[in-house]
Amino acid sequence: MITSTNSNQIKNIIALNKKARERKAQRLFVVEGIRAVAEVPGELLTAVFCVEGFENSPEGRSFIKEILDKAPDVVIEEVATNVFKAMSDTVTPQGVLALVKMQEFTLEDVLGIKQAKPAHLVILETLQDPGNMGTIIRTAEGAGATGVIINSTSVDLYSPKVVRSTMGSIFRVPHIIVQDLAGVIKELENQYGVAVYAAHLKGYRYYDEMDFTGPSAFMIGNEGNGLSDEISELATSYLKIPMEGQLESLNASVAASLLMYETHRQRKNR
Amino acid sequence: MITSTNSNQIKNIIALNKKARERKAQRLFVVEGIRAVAEVPGELLTAVFCVEGFENSPEGRSFIKEILDKAPDVVIEEVATNVFKAMSDTVTPQGVLALVKMQEFTLEDVLGIKQAKPAHLVILETLQDPGNMGTIIRTAEGAGATGVIINSTSVDLYSPKVVRSTMGSIFRVPHIIVQDLAGVIKELENQYGVAVYAAHLKGYRYYDEMDFTGPSAFMIGNEGNGLSDEISELATSYLKIPMEGQLESLNASVAASLLMYETHRQRKNR
Repeated sequence: MITSTNSNQIKNIIALNKKARERKAQRLFVVEGIRAVAEVPGELLTAVFCVEGFENSPEGRSFIKEILDKAPDVVIEEVATNVFKAMSDTVTPQGVLALVKMQEFTLEDVLGIKQAKPAHLVILETLQDPGNMGTIIRTAEGAGATGVIINSTSVDLYSPKVVRSTMGSIFRVPHIIVQDLAGVIKELENQYGVAVYAAHLKGYRYYDEMDFTGPSAFMIGNEGNGLSDEISELATSYLKIPMEGQLESLNASVAASLLMYETHRQRKNR
Repeated sequence: MITSTNSNQIKNIIALNKKARERKAQRLFVVEGIRAVAEVPGELLTAVFCVEGFENSPEGRSFIKEILDKAPDVVIEEVATNVFKAMSDTVTPQGVLALVKMQEFTLEDVLGIKQAKPAHLVILETLQDPGNMGTIIRTAEGAGATGVIINSTSVDLYSPKVVRSTMGSIFRVPHIIVQDLAGVIKELENQYGVAVYAAHLKGYRYYDEMDFTGPSAFMIGNEGNGLSDEISELATSYLKIPMEGQLESLNASVAASLLMYETHRQRKNR
C-alpha cells in the first residue's frame, strides 16, 4: 500500500492533475471515479489506484474484476486514505482513479472517413470553460458527430474538469488539438470539401433552414469574445440562431448542441 | 468611502453572497460586474458599490450616469480596494457590485398569460449545477419561453454563480420557486391545460416529431439522478431525445435547450 504523498507515483498523479504541460509531455492524464474509470478502454489503462479497503468491498471486487477483464496487465495500487485525498481532484473522492494514455487521432479519424459518414465536426477556438468543452464532447457523441477539432489555446481537453464533464465521451469521440487552426480549416474546405459554418452576426440565414447533409463543420468561439476575425473570415458560410428578448448570445455549448442536433435531424434514418 | 470589512453593509453583502437563507429572508441578492449591473432594471436596484477610483474613471463616469438615469434614488457607495475584494465573489473583481431586489412573479406571469402566448415552460426538479441553471434561464430567453418553474431543492437561483451565468436573463425570464412541485404540475395540467413533458426512458416518441404549439412544459431533472419517480409519473407525455453512441443522457442544460428551441421552431412566424 502506498502510504506517503512523497511516492514518485503519487507526486506524478498530482502533477498530471494540475499541469496541462505535464499531461502533454507524458501523453497521460487522470480519470477519477468508479463509473468513469469503468468506461476507459482497456488498452488505454496504465494504472488504477484504489483507496484502502475498496478492493475488499463488494463494489470494489466487481470493479476490479471488470478492470482485469479488459486490462489483464494493468497495475492496481492500494493507497492510504489521506494519500488518496491528496491525489484526488474532487471534493468527495469516490476512491478510484486511473492513469490513462491519450489516444492519437488523425484528421481522417475526426472526419469520419473510415466510417464512410459525411464529416460532422465541431471546431472550438479558444474555448475557456471546462464545463462547456466537456459538454460539447458529450453532446457530439449523442448527436453522432464524427469528431471535434480544438485549437491549442483552448482549455486543456485532458484537465480533470473537462474529462469529468465529458461523461466518458472523451474516449468515444475522435478529437485533435491543433496549433494552426486556420491552416486546418483551409484544408477541410479545400481538400475534404467540408462546409465550415460560423454562427455570426453576419449570418442572415437561420441554421434550421440550411442543409447540413453534406460534410459540415461548426465553429464555436470563445465564451466572452466569440470567434476571432481571422477564423470567422475563413467560414464557408455564416448562419444565425434565432434569439428572442434582449439576449446577445447563447452559451457556447448550447449553440454547439443546437447545430449538432440539427445536423443529426437532417441526416437521420429512423 | 467604506474602508472596513466590519461595516454592517459590507458584512451583509458577504452574507448575501454566501447564504441562500439570507437571500431568501431579505428578498435581496448581489449582482456583480459592470455589464451585469447595467442590465438590472432600475426599480430593482437598491445600492451600488464601486471600488475606489472607479467613479472618476471615464468608464466609471458613464456607468454612474447610466445607473442614475434608470435609478435616480439609488445609493452609490465607494469602497476601499481591499474591502471590495472581500465583498466580491469573483477572482478578478471588476469593481462594481449591486444589491438587488428579487422580483415577485406569479404562476400567471410564468405561463405568459398577459402576453397571450401559449405557455412555454421549463420545470426544474432538484437541479444542482449553478452553470446549468443559469444556462437554462439564458436559453429560455433566447427561445422565447414564457417562464421557468424551479422546485425549492434545486440550487438557489440567486446564488452568485447562477446569476452570472444567466447573463442578465434572470431579470427578463419570469420564474417562480415552488415548495410543492407535484401540486403545481397538477395545476398546470388540470387548470391551465398545459401538456407537461418528461424526457424519459419510457418515452417512445422523438421530441422533434411531437407537437409543442399548444401550452407546453418540459421537466428537467437532477444531473445525477434525473427526474424523481413521483414527478415523472405526473407527466402528460414522455418523449425521447435521440442519442448515438453509448451515451446514457445529455447534459441537463443541453436537453432543456433542444426542447425549448424545438418549441421555438414550431411556433415561429418568420
